[in-house]
This record gives sequence, C-alpha cells and structure tokens, in this order.
Amino acid sequence: MERMRRSDRLVQLSHLLLEHPATPFTLGQLGKVLGVAKSTISEDLDLVGESLAGLGLGRLESHPGAAGGVVFRPIKTKAQMQAFATNLCARLREPHRILTGGFIYMTDLIFTPEWTAEIGRTFASRFAQPAPDYVITVETKGIPLALMTARYLNRPLVVIRRDARVTEGPSVGINFLSGSTGRIQTMSLPRRAVPPGAKVLLIDDFMKAGGTARGMMDLMSEFEARVLGLGVLVETAEPARKLVRDRVALAVLDGVDEKARRVSIRPAEWVSAVE
Amino acid sequence: MERMRRSDRLVQLSHLLLEHPATPFTLGQLGKVLGVAKSTISEDLDLVGESLAGLGLGRLESHPGAAGGVVFRPIKTKAQMQAFATNLCARLREPHRILTGGFIYMTDLIFTPEWTAEIGRTFASRFAQPAPDYVITVETKGIPLALMTARYLNRPLVVIRRDARVTEGPSVGINFLSGSTGRIQTMSLPRRAVPPGAKVLLIDDFMKAGGTARGMMDLMSEFEARVLGLGVLVETAEPARKLVRDRVALAVLDGVDEKARRVSIRPAEWVSAVE
Repeated sequence: MERMRRSDRLVQLSHLLLEHPATPFTLGQLGKVLGVAKSTISEDLDLVGESLAGLGLGRLESHPGAAGGVVFRPIKTKAQMQAFATNLCARLREPHRILTGGFIYMTDLIFTPEWTAEIGRTFASRFAQPAPDYVITVETKGIPLALMTARYLNRPLVVIRRDARVTEGPSVGINFLSGSTGRIQTMSLPRRAVPPGAKVLLIDDFMKAGGTARGMMDLMSEFEARVLGLGVLVETAEPARKLVRDRVALAVLDGVDEKARRVSIRPAEWVSAVE
Repeated sequence: MERMRRSDRLVQLSHLLLEHPATPFTLGQLGKVLGVAKSTISEDLDLVGESLAGLGLGRLESHPGAAGGVVFRPIKTKAQMQAFATNLCARLREPHRILTGGFIYMTDLIFTPEWTAEIGRTFASRFAQPAPDYVITVETKGIPLALMTARYLNRPLVVIRRDARVTEGPSVGINFLSGSTGRIQTMSLPRRAVPPGAKVLLIDDFMKAGGTARGMMDLMSEFEARVLGLGVLVETAEPARKLVRDRVALAVLDGVDEKARRVSIRPAEWVSAVE
C-alpha cells in the first residue's frame, strides 16, 4: 500500500472516528488501514484528539498497553447541551406549531436529520455512562431520535411495536393504560430482540401522563432488562405527578395558549442549571 | 480568534463536511469558522477533497464564483454498493433468521446503526440525482433506513402513519389493499407534511406484492407530489408482477426453505451487474 501523506491520514482518521463513534480501534488496526507504523499513528491521533477536544466535538479516549487503542466519544459539554436545548425551545415556540388540544407540531423539526442528529447526540452525551446494551423506543415518533442516540452510542436500536407482528417470531406483549387517551393499549416485542439481563436506555419524543413510558418499563421487566435511564424530548409540566419518576426531559412544555397563539416551553432544569 | 494550525483545520473541515453531508458551505463561511483567509481555505479544501475522493468516501463538489463554495456528497461507487449488497445478503442468509411463513428476521441487522447508515448511504448514492425534497416512508421498519437516507441527502424525513393521528392537524388518508394480508388497510399523512409539487423519494424495508408501496404512491398523488424513485431494501422474487413497476431493490429474496434451513437471497441485478 502506498504511504499516505499526513494530511490524508488526518482526514481518514477523522472520518473513521466520526463515522464510527464509540467504536474501539487498536493502533494495530489503524496502522494497517493507513499503512504506517504504530508510532506514526500515535502522533496522528494526538493531533486529531487535540483538535476534536479543542473544537468541542467530543473526546478521544486512549487505552494504553499492548492491545492499546482509541475510542471516540462524541460527547457534548454541558454548555453545548444547554445551547441546543435553548435553540430547540425557540423553534418549538413558533406559533404555527399550535395544534388543537394543547399539543404542538414538532415532527417536521425532529425529523430533519441535522436536528435529529443533535437530539441523538444530546441523549448520547447525557446517558454515556454507564453505557447501555440497547437503545429502546416505542413506535413511531421516537424512532428517529432513538436511532440517532443509538448511533452515537454505537448500540443497536430496538423498537417496541404497538401491535403483535406475525413476522418476527415469538413475542411478549403487555397492556397499558394510555394517560392521554384514557384507553387500554398494547405493546409488544419479539422475545429475541432483548436478551435477559440486558442494560437498556429508553427514549421517547413526548411525555404527558407517562403511561407509555410506564408500559415500556413494565415490558422491560418482562425481559428481565435493567433500565439505565429514560430520555424524553419534551414533557408537559402538568400533570406534575407522572407515572414514571426517573426520567430526563430536554424541554418542559408549560402550556399552549391557543387563543393568544403562545407556546410556553423551556429547557429542563438539569440542562439549564449553571454548575 | 486564534489562528489554527493546518492539522486542526483539516480535522475540523473533515468534521464539518462529514457531519453535514449535501450541505453547501461558502468559502466565506468556512473562513469565518476557521479564522483564516479564503485562499488558505481553498488550499485546505483541495487537500481534504483529494483525500475523500482517494479514500472512496465521496466527492467534494466545488462551485466557483463570488458566492462560491463546496458541497460534500458521500456518494458510494458502484463497486462499494456491490460489496455492501453482497455483505448484506451474506448476513441475511444466516439460518437463525428464518421465521415461519417464508419470512426472515432482519430487524436486528437493519436497526444496528452502522448497518442502517450503510443502507442509507447506498440509497442516497443511488438516488442522489435529481435530489428529492423529502424522503418518505411508512411506519415502522422503514423509518431507520429512510432517516439515514435523508441524513446523507440532507433532506427532511416524512413518515406516513398507519392510522390517522389527532395530534398533527388536518390529514389526508387513503385505503389500500395489503397484498400480504389480503386486507384493506389505511395510511394517512398530515396535510402540512408535504407541500404540493414536492419531489419525493420513497423508501421501505420490504416488498412482496407491493400493496404498501402502491398505497404510498397513491397517497403522494393526493399531495400532488412527484415521486422520483422508490428504494426497497429486500423484495421477494415472487410474485414477479408487483403492484409497483418502478422500484430499486437492493436484494432479492428468492425463497426460504424452512425444512432445509436455507435462505436464498442475492444482490439485485442493477447492483450486481458489471459495467
């Protein structure tokens, strides 16, 4: 293999690390890909790592020793999370988003890949440690958010269905009370999707009473999974007492004044508090 | 702003371009971010562009002139698409995937972010020109694939629901005949999700008779949208005559022999043909 120029190596290292977040690479592997000695790779990685850190893109963790290597973690700083939550709230306050019944239309925003990626990177930063084995959501609107979270954590996504599907083998279903509709609903997951003892992170787009989240928790119990955390993009201020106690929302919707065309939404306390 | 070293600039340029595919940047914008003159940026971009192309990561397109700039298109070569389709089929042939009724379990694979990203990059490469305004899918399993396609094309994702939702404003619904279940089903989309005259790319994970895809096409007619293409991850060889004629599948499932525990699946002709 032809020896690459340093600029080529820096670009390829950047690509490898950015496209494969949370993925361990040994110096041997990287040396093979780039066709240079481990010592050269070490110097290159120092440069790349400094740049990534200096630019606030995340941190490059090194593991010393014979099987030594690096892992890139695209972790946001607290200030970056705060700035993002503030931007998000500003966009969600746009009056054209107001829907009948105190809801806001946010699908266009959260399904725009640059926003989806930022939301995913925020959840991945908040729930980086301890790392989950799976990122789990329930269809439908949480899926893009959960996928991008999973991508930055380099973990598989698992999607709970709202009905039992015939095409995916034996499954476990539960019934739960949806707080917003007041009706009993169903959710199910193929038995093979999550092995017993798995550590899971739950992600959803919206929480009002918390019935759906409670259902996800109960379903995870059936799988003997350990829930490490629950991330929600937007939760309503009311009801204050929700069916799930431990959760991390990015924004809190205080209310929608349909007449005055005003949306009251703010970053959640954990993200807006000054340290 | 402190002047960055060239290595820092190369790393940051790589990051900017890789994290923002199909996004135009002017030299002025990039110069501001990096704190250097346009002429310096030009030289840096030449280096980064050569590396990206040489490494098969995509191409950096330049637009000359006063408002000149660059766009990074993470387009795969034909050989890369071919290699990926071959790998995908090898994984989908694993006997543990066989489900009752001639189906295969592929959710675990296509929901693993590294695979999802590669599938999305393949569709984005195949449907790069003419560029769609929206990437559209129908819930549920197509969503991750469509999101990653949308990400590499830098276009919003739109998800058609299988029922009418109360929380998203006025919507348009249609009924369609599902070929696999033989039943009439519903799909719907909020009126505001797709403006009249939009150019759209449809993405789905699986096609048997093509009823769902036909439904998506019909729904798009109601929105006066122009369908530029339909990408499907896996289609079945039978029935050969499907309800949608123009489609691009990545793999063709010839059959599943449940007794012999054998899956017959191969890359589609367009991707496997030698040019």
